[in-house]
Amino acid sequence: MSAVLQVVEDNDPYLDNLFVTEMVNQLNALDSYGTYEGWSKAKIVDPLVLTKERKKEIPIIGDPDEITIARVKAYYSALACSIEKETGLMAVSLVNISHEGFGRALIMIGKLIVVDKTLRDIHRFGFRSLEEMSAQSDKLIEKANMLVEKYKAAATD
Amino acid sequence: MSAVLQVVEDNDPYLDNLFVTEMVNQLNALDSYGTYEGWSKAKIVDPLVLTKERKKEIPIIGDPDEITIARVKAYYSALACSIEKETGLMAVSLVNISHEGFGRALIMIGKLIVVDKTLRDIHRFGFRSLEEMSAQSDKLIEKANMLVEKYKAAATD
Repeated sequence: MSAVLQVVEDNDPYLDNLFVTEMVNQLNALDSYGTYEGWSKAKIVDPLVLTKERKKEIPIIGDPDEITIARVKAYYSALACSIEKETGLMAVSLVNISHEGFGRALIMIGKLIVVDKTLRDIHRFGFRSLEEMSAQSDKLIEKANMLVEKYKAAATD
Repeated sequence: MSAVLQVVEDNDPYLDNLFVTEMVNQLNALDSYGTYEGWSKAKIVDPLVLTKERKKEIPIIGDPDEITIARVKAYYSALACSIEKETGLMAVSLVNISHEGFGRALIMIGKLIVVDKTLRDIHRFGFRSLEEMSAQSDKLIEKANMLVEKYKAAATD
């Protein structure tokens, strides 16, 4: 199965992106058995990159397994941490996924919802490249920061 | 088992409370097999009333069953509907419960969180009386309404 071959290169420049670094931290936090010991950042974050070829190998309809669900939760935790750093305010993520892989992800600051995503086809969760992961996540972080500026009172309530 | 004896009287004045009426509607909506046909409002809402005697019969530690979880979700749906009527704005509830009966319930209007409750011991979810249910719920509805007034822009974003 070609899906187990690593697609993220160890010299991918986006490994230095702040969000990607946070993502690796969150995945490391999940690794309670020390499986990742000695692994490069590229190898740890690799399963979140779904190239066209990898995507082809995943059935269109399917139930997400526990590892995939844990990765999605790690993704939103990483987002919450990044938003926290950006805004200086405590951010909490909440991910609600049904057995069929549908759900909703929220990130909240005080009484303000700064990220609100409908989730679908969670068993196919991933990004085409680290570049895409960085770009999409940075956009969400920026938007969250803008919302906090706009609705500061609700965010600090 | 005395827990199956109805404790809500058919002439309980709080059966006319707006929230309690909404609660009965939500429970009715769950009743896909028509079990409640011919039941009085009092009988339908009865399982949500946990008198001291009923509470004693429920173990302190326990996992919530599906019916209890469905009732908790119905409760927050009823709250969301009542808040919607009060504020004139669409309210959405989201209830996240782990297998161990812990979790979080949110009600959101636009980008504003108007109800945010930590849930615990969900297998013991209930109110001492309909009076208590009305009083607690009316207080949450009022608070939500106040938050919408205060943070109108975030609620209508």
